[in-house]
Amino acid sequence: MTSRRLGRQTVALLRPPSVVSYANIGGKFEANGPLAGHFDLLCTDSFFGKDTWEQAESAMQQEALTRALEKGGLTPAELDYVLAGDLLNQCIGTAFGLRDFQIPFFGLYGACSTMGESLALGSLLLSGGHARTAACMTSSHYCTAERQYRMPVPYGSQRTPTAQWTATAAGCCILGDQGDGPYITHVTCGKIVDMGITDVNNMGAAMAPAAYDTLSALFRETKTGPGDYDLIVTGDLGALGHAIVTDLFRRDGVDLSRNYQDCGMLLYDLEKQDMHAGGSGCGCSAAVLNGYLLDGLRRGRWRRLVFAPTGALLSPTSSFQGESVPGICHAVVFSAGKEGET
Amino acid sequence: MTSRRLGRQTVALLRPPSVVSYANIGGKFEANGPLAGHFDLLCTDSFFGKDTWEQAESAMQQEALTRALEKGGLTPAELDYVLAGDLLNQCIGTAFGLRDFQIPFFGLYGACSTMGESLALGSLLLSGGHARTAACMTSSHYCTAERQYRMPVPYGSQRTPTAQWTATAAGCCILGDQGDGPYITHVTCGKIVDMGITDVNNMGAAMAPAAYDTLSALFRETKTGPGDYDLIVTGDLGALGHAIVTDLFRRDGVDLSRNYQDCGMLLYDLEKQDMHAGGSGCGCSAAVLNGYLLDGLRRGRWRRLVFAPTGALLSPTSSFQGESVPGICHAVVFSAGKEGET
Repeated sequence: MTSRRLGRQTVALLRPPSVVSYANIGGKFEANGPLAGHFDLLCTDSFFGKDTWEQAESAMQQEALTRALEKGGLTPAELDYVLAGDLLNQCIGTAFGLRDFQIPFFGLYGACSTMGESLALGSLLLSGGHARTAACMTSSHYCTAERQYRMPVPYGSQRTPTAQWTATAAGCCILGDQGDGPYITHVTCGKIVDMGITDVNNMGAAMAPAAYDTLSALFRETKTGPGDYDLIVTGDLGALGHAIVTDLFRRDGVDLSRNYQDCGMLLYDLEKQDMHAGGSGCGCSAAVLNGYLLDGLRRGRWRRLVFAPTGALLSPTSSFQGESVPGICHAVVFSAGKEGET
Repeated sequence: MTSRRLGRQTVALLRPPSVVSYANIGGKFEANGPLAGHFDLLCTDSFFGKDTWEQAESAMQQEALTRALEKGGLTPAELDYVLAGDLLNQCIGTAFGLRDFQIPFFGLYGACSTMGESLALGSLLLSGGHARTAACMTSSHYCTAERQYRMPVPYGSQRTPTAQWTATAAGCCILGDQGDGPYITHVTCGKIVDMGITDVNNMGAAMAPAAYDTLSALFRETKTGPGDYDLIVTGDLGALGHAIVTDLFRRDGVDLSRNYQDCGMLLYDLEKQDMHAGGSGCGCSAAVLNGYLLDGLRRGRWRRLVFAPTGALLSPTSSFQGESVPGICHAVVFSAGKEGET
């Protein structure tokens, strides 16, 4: 037995994979934020020394993987799989970033849930006995996202109060079948949830129902509640989405108010940095996890943590065609100890 | 033990998952091709009754999954996972096509290798003991691909002789941990291979080195050669890419000439249908597999078959920025019997 299926969405891993190494990269705004001390590299040049922002995003993924390998004392040849994706059309941030590493590669598209999706699949592959090591990673870049999803940056478009700021960041987490933790003990795979939100400047509202759906499944299927975790972190819902998730659980009589945070609210000082509803982008939750959160787990600040990044599965084309915004949220449970079930 | 890692890229599945059901959908040109008798649905309306081609592509995925479920006597609630992706920006063909099914979903981006990637990950999840059923699927649409990658269809742009024709097609394969076969016995995960091809109208040449790389790894790591398989099928290399792969192996003293075909050459009558180098798009290999190839395996025409679809990991943006075209190829071995190792 490698795992125990607890319900429709949650699998308990009986041989929990361990975090072996991790690294994150950030840009100028991340350097000015409250988590600056938890980055491996902060680069104020938005081009990362390259000619285009897309190339810069690839360079960030390349650098995040290189640093994670170095910190873990590993070579690319020692990685059995890399699972990665990003927000760019056809995921070119990932394809060009990973091109030179010669590692067997599974490309993912989970929008801003990608860090959770890659950890979910990576830990399932490892605990299933198919691999000893897997790198899970993603990135986003403010300037590539703006020109692809919204307006060219030089236009200086005004933002709505519900808008979020795409992080210029990348994160990489290397999992192993051996290691000293933290361990991934549970994986809850998300379903697509679409409550009909059509405002593309309000991703928090669009994705919050997916976070609620996945966290509800996790709690229900593991027979746990918020009190069983030291910290529950969604990924880039921002202030508005965070409030909606809190409210949806309150209606169920579940109190999230004491230990629930969101990566989009952690990465920046929302008021001082004028970040409106908060951070977003695949790189937001990836950078917060592969620095601040894993640092805290390793140092004993938290023993048990739910990491649940959320993604909005839209494109500019789908929005122009009048579609609403489907969301998804993949959750993994990190634990300082190896207990597969509780 | 769930699997045995035979080398850097290949895993032999000791509990080979079985094909439980499959279905495919095609459009007008697929209906006029030589495989028309191997489709579940052929629709001559390029809009599939919807308002836009993107919605049509979603409808095709929806229909392919619905038919595969029906043929297998399954409900969506009986599927543990669906693994899918497509070529559209942010994979909206998949997101909107699967939105209503409420199945735990892992989104993939492997370009035209997606059918292979989904089968690879799906069979690893099943043989790892994490699930009992998984649907693996993808789609492409000529008109959505043309306007996204090339020119709006009404322009009637002239095509180069090396160009391929994006299939309007979708395919879905449902795998189970129980079943009467065919079985997936081996998975070879591809690496990104980029030989510097920059001609975006010559995808066959760009992807052929990836097919050569993955098939070489499969042969080397399983200690087999082309003669050990009844059929080896790459996915949408077309006539030119097929010739390049054959030639690359010939240089190694390996003769592929007797049992090697390509989905891009099977789907259409290249001469009569004026398809230039052949078919392409995620839906090409998906439709050929989930009809012609699986029909043949079930009917005993072939006992052992390598399915190795190829993807080009470019975007219009990467090409405009002068980048070359990285390729990837994921291979799975189908076998009429359950032999995990040979």
